[in-house]
Amino acid sequence: MEKRIMELISDNKVVEIRNELLEMNIVDIAQVLEEVDKHQLVRLFRILPKDIAAGVFSYVPVELQQHIIESITDSETKSIVDELFLDDAVDFIDEMPANIVKKVLKNTDENMRTIINQLLNYPEDSAGSIMTIEYVDLKKEMTVRDAIAHIKKTGVDKETINTCYVIDKNRKLEGVVSIRRLILSSEEKLISDIMNEDFIFIYTTADQEQVAMLFKKYDLLTMPVVDAECRLVGIITVDDIVDIIEQENTEDIQKMAALQPSEEEYLKTGVFTLAKHRVVWLLVLMLSATFTGHIIKRFGDVLQSVVLLAAFIPMLMDTGGNAGSQSSTLIIRGLALGEVSMKDASKVLWKEFRVSIIVGLALAIVNFLRIFYLEKVDFLITFTVCFTLFCTVVIAKLVGGILPIGAKYLKLDPAIMASPLITTIVDALALMIYFTMAAWLIGL
Amino acid sequence: MEKRIMELISDNKVVEIRNELLEMNIVDIAQVLEEVDKHQLVRLFRILPKDIAAGVFSYVPVELQQHIIESITDSETKSIVDELFLDDAVDFIDEMPANIVKKVLKNTDENMRTIINQLLNYPEDSAGSIMTIEYVDLKKEMTVRDAIAHIKKTGVDKETINTCYVIDKNRKLEGVVSIRRLILSSEEKLISDIMNEDFIFIYTTADQEQVAMLFKKYDLLTMPVVDAECRLVGIITVDDIVDIIEQENTEDIQKMAALQPSEEEYLKTGVFTLAKHRVVWLLVLMLSATFTGHIIKRFGDVLQSVVLLAAFIPMLMDTGGNAGSQSSTLIIRGLALGEVSMKDASKVLWKEFRVSIIVGLALAIVNFLRIFYLEKVDFLITFTVCFTLFCTVVIAKLVGGILPIGAKYLKLDPAIMASPLITTIVDALALMIYFTMAAWLIGL
Repeated sequence: MEKRIMELISDNKVVEIRNELLEMNIVDIAQVLEEVDKHQLVRLFRILPKDIAAGVFSYVPVELQQHIIESITDSETKSIVDELFLDDAVDFIDEMPANIVKKVLKNTDENMRTIINQLLNYPEDSAGSIMTIEYVDLKKEMTVRDAIAHIKKTGVDKETINTCYVIDKNRKLEGVVSIRRLILSSEEKLISDIMNEDFIFIYTTADQEQVAMLFKKYDLLTMPVVDAECRLVGIITVDDIVDIIEQENTEDIQKMAALQPSEEEYLKTGVFTLAKHRVVWLLVLMLSATFTGHIIKRFGDVLQSVVLLAAFIPMLMDTGGNAGSQSSTLIIRGLALGEVSMKDASKVLWKEFRVSIIVGLALAIVNFLRIFYLEKVDFLITFTVCFTLFCTVVIAKLVGGILPIGAKYLKLDPAIMASPLITTIVDALALMIYFTMAAWLIGL
Repeated sequence: MEKRIMELISDNKVVEIRNELLEMNIVDIAQVLEEVDKHQLVRLFRILPKDIAAGVFSYVPVELQQHIIESITDSETKSIVDELFLDDAVDFIDEMPANIVKKVLKNTDENMRTIINQLLNYPEDSAGSIMTIEYVDLKKEMTVRDAIAHIKKTGVDKETINTCYVIDKNRKLEGVVSIRRLILSSEEKLISDIMNEDFIFIYTTADQEQVAMLFKKYDLLTMPVVDAECRLVGIITVDDIVDIIEQENTEDIQKMAALQPSEEEYLKTGVFTLAKHRVVWLLVLMLSATFTGHIIKRFGDVLQSVVLLAAFIPMLMDTGGNAGSQSSTLIIRGLALGEVSMKDASKVLWKEFRVSIIVGLALAIVNFLRIFYLEKVDFLITFTVCFTLFCTVVIAKLVGGILPIGAKYLKLDPAIMASPLITTIVDALALMIYFTMAAWLIGL
């Protein structure tokens, strides 16, 4: 399909291109536009009917949106912006430079301009900033017949009519009623009789992460957003929540790898930006690793007399780091999904302690067999290595289990207590045990 | 709310409890049931009306579901299972031991039993295994009026009526029509005139990850599932997709931390299971780290003459590991979200190369200042450390960038190419450079 349309484009067959595009899903059209050159892009965009053009526009990357708006006339801009869903319009305006914003706002009517400005004012990542104000509102005195007539009259512009919202004369939210309920009820019934008054709602100021939590917990498709006086001001739909969940996951994963989180796609991010997001944490961790270096330096004479001890440093460090990050990862994820909470700290410690005993013993035994029998290393050294390994695993798992909970307690993001930081801490502890024990055994 | 109901429960006020529960969302009722003891649990469950009881049942954890079924009569079991949505019923049966499955299947009518058995036969994590067969089907010869009458007659049992599916006499899927479109169209219109024939669908055998990808890409609320002959067999709804997305993310995060992925919640997983999920990868990585140990052993004489060299091993290893896992994490996530693909390999390498030069230089310079000026270490050793650091960062970032893509190419999961494996590889390379260079400089 995509190949064929590319051929038509290079052959410049305008009518065929248009017919082909109209057969396609708007998401796929947007993908075609991404792949042609910028000149073709604007030409293709112009041959689309304006309702489809608006849909396609909301799926095109920011830089192409900017290019399109720069290339088209004021009246074309107006017709696109008029057709956009308001939340898509706000998302797009939020990303644009000032001159584009000016061009767009100039070409919207005053009413819409006021609303857009209002929506732009909600704090980033708040419920207010991700909601749309296009929803169906009903009154509880309406009959089902009235309600359906009202939907028929006003529903075309609404993002979803699957759930309708019942408000009083002050716009205070009184109930919700699904389209399913409306259709399945007899036409004479009153909305007040069929509406659900025990609904889940959220305030405009709530964080989007909290919104996503509620969507997941209650399996919602839409959620009403109210202001401090419980007046309905907008709704959030599940398709935006899916994006937010992925975005929050990406952020967590990046933090866990000692990266400054970024919403930009990798391939579209500049080299300097990428470097900037990485270098700070690397510096911090590099400088803290020098602490571990000092431990080794302090035990220089021990190492001098048994240089073989150095050969086991990588194994001890890596295993400690891995053992710790396994635990911290499970706890960080459990906290993020709400499966583990701060009050579980002692349960986590007790569980990690028992797990670490099993895992530590298994690793130490395998290691003993390998070093003592296969590599024929001296018993005392073998014992030192294996004992340190066991202690390291136990400490690593306890540290890995408790630090994320501690971070949460200190209102830090638990995700920063992942592999890199745990590794640095566990390394230092492991080497301290290792050399102390070696010094003691050699001194005997 | 929850506190109050707990008080009522301990005071044994049955009527008040029931009224209080009926005011609550089924998800919250399920949470209350989780918190009372097992005896109370069954009592509370029994005072719920059966439609609500079924809803609550689907939100209760597996072990409590089992306890409930074991405690209630056959006829109660039947009334619960009858009210369950089919996909929830199948999910629940899938988790139960044989005696419970028998009790449940005995108490379902033959028709439903056949369907449940069919659904249980789809491979795990396939589209067929997560779909429900409760959907509204229409014929294209129907008018909008006929269609709405049909929905009114049959819609009560359907999981969602927001999208209806148009099938021919062989059940071949011909189009979809949203309830919104139905309501907004005039009653005389034919379904064939308003249905959308360019719809997204999936085969029963497709993997759930692919299903989730399509939901995200096209912002879908429901998706039809067809068999090899394109006959409609079920639908998937977005609320299940949200759970799958979280589950896939959890799996990726666990793999990235060298854990065998598991769907069980941390606090509910036994100590031995946890240990089993961790020990295999730890063993593999521990044994590969001994390779790094051999490098150090080989350069024993170099180390013997300049024991100070050992003090920088932790810093070099940690920084290399962190630098590599930053890159691999970005690429693994990019691959998972479809933002990076195999054909981008050279772009990734070129980008990582430039980023690594910047980051490597920055780290090397800071390190030089610290070691040479602050710690007053000999110039040759300082130079060796900083040069190795620079090379390590460059290599780490190239390895971290390319290995996940290589894994994808070999049809392995890119997530295994995360921090732990990268660290092990980069450690060996870093120490090789470090000692080779040190040996050469000292030999001069």
